[in-house]
This record gives sequence, structure tokens and C-alpha cells, in this order.
Amino acid sequence: MRNLITDVPGLLVGHCHDEQRASGVSAVIFEAPARASLAVHGGAPGVRDTALLEPERTVQRVDALVLSGGSAFGLDAMGGVQAWLRSRGRGYAVGNVLVPIVPGAILFDLLNGGDKDWGEEPFYWYLGRLCCERAAADFGLGSVGAGYGATTADLKGGLGSASVLTSAGFHVGALVAVNALGTATIGGGPHFWAAPYEQGREFGGLGFPSSLPPEALAIRLKGDGAAASIGQNTTIAIVATDADLTKAEAKHVAVMAHDGMARALRPAHAAMDGDLVFAAATSTARQSPSPRELTEIGALAADCLARAIARAIYEATALPFPGALPSWRDRFDTLDRRGSLA
Amino acid sequence: MRNLITDVPGLLVGHCHDEQRASGVSAVIFEAPARASLAVHGGAPGVRDTALLEPERTVQRVDALVLSGGSAFGLDAMGGVQAWLRSRGRGYAVGNVLVPIVPGAILFDLLNGGDKDWGEEPFYWYLGRLCCERAAADFGLGSVGAGYGATTADLKGGLGSASVLTSAGFHVGALVAVNALGTATIGGGPHFWAAPYEQGREFGGLGFPSSLPPEALAIRLKGDGAAASIGQNTTIAIVATDADLTKAEAKHVAVMAHDGMARALRPAHAAMDGDLVFAAATSTARQSPSPRELTEIGALAADCLARAIARAIYEATALPFPGALPSWRDRFDTLDRRGSLA
Repeated sequence: MRNLITDVPGLLVGHCHDEQRASGVSAVIFEAPARASLAVHGGAPGVRDTALLEPERTVQRVDALVLSGGSAFGLDAMGGVQAWLRSRGRGYAVGNVLVPIVPGAILFDLLNGGDKDWGEEPFYWYLGRLCCERAAADFGLGSVGAGYGATTADLKGGLGSASVLTSAGFHVGALVAVNALGTATIGGGPHFWAAPYEQGREFGGLGFPSSLPPEALAIRLKGDGAAASIGQNTTIAIVATDADLTKAEAKHVAVMAHDGMARALRPAHAAMDGDLVFAAATSTARQSPSPRELTEIGALAADCLARAIARAIYEATALPFPGALPSWRDRFDTLDRRGSLA
Repeated sequence: MRNLITDVPGLLVGHCHDEQRASGVSAVIFEAPARASLAVHGGAPGVRDTALLEPERTVQRVDALVLSGGSAFGLDAMGGVQAWLRSRGRGYAVGNVLVPIVPGAILFDLLNGGDKDWGEEPFYWYLGRLCCERAAADFGLGSVGAGYGATTADLKGGLGSASVLTSAGFHVGALVAVNALGTATIGGGPHFWAAPYEQGREFGGLGFPSSLPPEALAIRLKGDGAAASIGQNTTIAIVATDADLTKAEAKHVAVMAHDGMARALRPAHAAMDGDLVFAAATSTARQSPSPRELTEIGALAADCLARAIARAIYEATALPFPGALPSWRDRFDTLDRRGSLA
């Protein structure tokens, strides 16, 4: 087990980012088309080709799912993935043409210090296409791909992932780009809200604080004190399983996975962010879950997403610009117990 | 402050239950019609007159909101509230008739040991009507109203409430009937998942456990080991504020309030439950929130809901039937520190 979404059989993940632009793209490429759906709980989402993901719509399966920086400009990235897949004979057959189905979502990272003047070139389209070339089972976390330019209210954001096996033997994993309106840590200290869900020391092993700091429940938002704070936020995620889910079941798993955001971020799901979760089923386990097994898949998808959010922050490094937000390690490095890991 | 939803100016709450039937009803009666909306995140909801609550629908305000036991039979309760309001000259005017708008939702408590053979009489209609007679600012928690017959996976469920004031001075409160598929306590111990959000010792002051019990993350569901477990669950809630919200803003507050369920229950929002949250704005503060203020209202509505869920379990008493689930106090009374409260 890699403790990555790629522990779910039937998918690979590719990342690409540009340091000068301080932005990037992450793509999940399914080895065979996967049933997928989406739940949007934020008030300001940015998406492409997601209407077909509703359970009552005709197309059942997607070829890839994409998370991108770049705000609405990042919606070009799905096109790059689509072009790459088409040239490899992938896609939904309509007569004798193949149309790869590549839904995706974006986050806002246009004010993070990077140079955003890429002119009229389809910058994100090229990043998306490059993600496909790099798709693999192994990948790094933190300031990577769609999380490269991401931030939270008080620390550098990033890209995270985690996985687990359900009691029935289904694989469940999460991939997330954390660009949250709020914070993943408690009251300005080193502890993560997601601590109760940590496996091993995947994000430092600090546990939950024995007593909460006085400011633990204060609402700290990105842009507090600044003029333009609306719309600079969004946590976008993909959860996946190898269970054979219907689209309706995938939609419900996406809804349940949002509980992981609720537990890992304070606050989440605001009118000012576009928090959303895609859920996909590769079906390689060739088995439909019972209602109880489906509930466990959803509950553990939420756990994986909470853990992935904390790992994203824990693994991130600060952007190399004056005034850039510090990373978790910049601020709390002396508390980092990774050295004591076996 | 009563630490009840009735701290929000402009509403009263009435409860009614029947001990023999082991079920009941709770109603929020607005002194003047309130803007309201709804977010359904569970897979098996039971509702009445909720289609009109979507932001794009015409009717803007409701006269009351109702939570009821009785599964789909409980959908009679809203009619009893409606009849009482009509006779007092309340309602949406259509020509010269008044139609009180009374949406509501139910929970499943038909297998809790109570006698459910009430024949063809509109049992819940009468309970609903009686709630109106009893509507007041003060009310008890625990085995009361819609929470009277409610259960969780391992302990008696119940009715809870909590309130808070936002930094901008808006009142926010929550009312909830907890009939959860999962559990509100951690791994079979006395600590509540909602502990980080506790104010004072409103649910015992035990805090978060210093180390998690080994079974903390096990998925424990109502009906595990029993033949028929599907559909016996649902946590239904109402959050309210005195801010002047649009229906769309109320919908978003309902979405955010669900994060309180996510934090207080494990799991929540399953395909097997009907978890949902109504949000209402009495508008008595005569002030629209800024985007930041709206985010704080939503975040604190989530906190209130998490606290209300824990209070519901903490204050409950077991049903007087053989084999009934124990209450939190039955199981953990020696740990109850209420005696040390000022």
C-alpha cells in the first residue's frame, strides 16, 4: 500500500506544475472508463463537463478526472487530457468518433505571487496534456500538481492523498487539492483538525491537543483584513473505490466524503468557496457493495479525504516569493517527528 | 441566553410526545413568516412541502417547521400545525384564503418498543396540533418531542438544542432530533465526537479523550447484527438566525450546518439515513450579512448543530421497555460532572 489514491486498482495519477506561474494540474486517468458522480457543497464552484455526472444523465462512465489551478482559466486543462486520450484511442463512441469524457474542477490561485501573464496560449491545456504523459502509481504530495499554488488561511496549501481497505476488502482512496478558505490546523497551533483520523504518523503523529488553544474555534478566513477575499478559495477532491458502484451510489459516496472536509477544515463549504468532491468507481473488484458495505465505503472515503487534507498541508513547501505563506514545516519543524519513524 | 434555538428572536418551540406510542413531534413556530430553505444529504429522507424551499421557487417564507417521529406516518404532524395556524389567521394569502406554509421532516422510530397500533386516527396530526398549544421559549432536552422515541447505534437518542452569538451580533441556534445510523460517542466510551465544540459543560465537560480507544474509528451502525437495518435512521435538524437572509443564503447555511452532523456523528449522511437540515431566517435583526458574516453564521450553525447533537444524547433517558437501549447517563453516570457545575 502506497497510502495514495493509486492503491485503488484501475487508475493512475499524473501531476504537472509551473514554478514561475505558481500553478499546476493533477489528473486521474482511469485504465478503463469508470462510473463517476459529483457533489458540490461550496457556493462558488468552477467545473467542466460535470452536468453528465448526475445519476439520471445518460453517460455512465468517465475516462479521466482533472483538478486544476488557474481559476476558470484552468478549465482548459481537461481539454489537454482529452486530446491525449483521444490520440490513444480512448473515449465514448458516438458513431465512428471517440469522445473522451473528462470532467474536472478548478481552484483559485491567481493571487499567490506567481506570474499569471501567460498571454493567449492555452497554458493549462498544455499542463493537462503533460499530466497524462506522467501518469503513474507513485507520486509526491504537498506543493505538487493542482496543489502547487494552493494556500489556506494561514499556511501553504497543497496536494494530498490517502487510502484504506474496507472490512469487505474494497479499496478506497482520496486525492485532494487544498486551497481552503479556512484552516486545517487548530487555533494557529501545529495540530490538525483531522488528527482523530490519522493512520500511523502520516501527518506527523501529533494527535489531538490535550486542551484546545483559546482561539481554537475562532473563524479565521483567507483574506481576512484584505480588500478582496471572496472567491480565492476552494478545496477540490476525488475519491475512488474499486467496488462496482452505480452512478447514484457514486454520488452518495461523494456526499459522504464531504464529511471528511467538514472534519479536516474549519470552516468548509462556505458560500465563498467552491468545495466539491468527485467520486469514481473503477469496478475492478467486480462486486456491488451491500447497503452496509456502501456506508462503510462512504465513511472511509470521508476518513481518507480528511487524512489527505492534513497530509497536503503537512507535506507542502512555501512558494519562493516574498511574502508567501509559510508551510506547516516552516512554522512547526521542531515538532516534526518524522525522524522517529521506523 | 437559554442555549436553545429560542435565543434567536422571532420563534417559539413546542413539543409533544406519547409515552405509550414512544414517539413525538417538535415544531418551530415563527412569530412572523421566516425565509427558509433545506439541504438533504441523507439517502432516505421523508419530507412534506419542502419542494417550495428551493431558492428558485416562488414562496419565500414559512410559518412553521416541524420535526416528527413516526416515519412517513409522521407527515400528518405538519397538517395539525397548519390547522392551528389557520385558525389563528396565519398563512400565505391566496385571494381571501390563508394557507399556512409548514414544511417538515420525519425520522423512523417504529421499531423502538412502543405500541404503534394507533388505528386510523391521525395520531401525529393531533400531536402536531398540541405542539402549537405548548409553543414557548423554554423547553427541555433529551427524551422530548420528536426525539422522544429516537435512538442511535448504541445509546438512546433524543432532542437537542444550542445557540450562539456571532461576532457581528447575529443570533444562531439549532434544534435537532438525533436518530442516527451511527454513534455520537467515540468508540463505545463516554466522550462525544462533538467535544472540541462544547461550550461550558453543556454535555458533561469530558473533553476529547487524551488517546483514542482502539475501536474509535470502527464503523458501528444501528441494526448491525439484526435482519432489517435499513431505514431505521435519520437525524433531522432546524438551524435559525435573526439575520436577514435570502432563500439562497438560507440554503447555503443549511449546507454548512451539515458539517456539524459530520463532526458530531460517525458516520453521518449515509444512503441508509435521511439526514437533513432546514435553515430559517427570522430577519428580526433587519440586517443582511456580508459574505464574511454569512460564512460565520454558517460555521457557527454547524457548531450549534454539533453541540445540539451531543446535548440530545447527554440529556436523554431510556425508553421504559424491556431491551430498550440505555441512555448516556445509564452507562456513564459516574463520569457525569454536572454536580461540579456552579
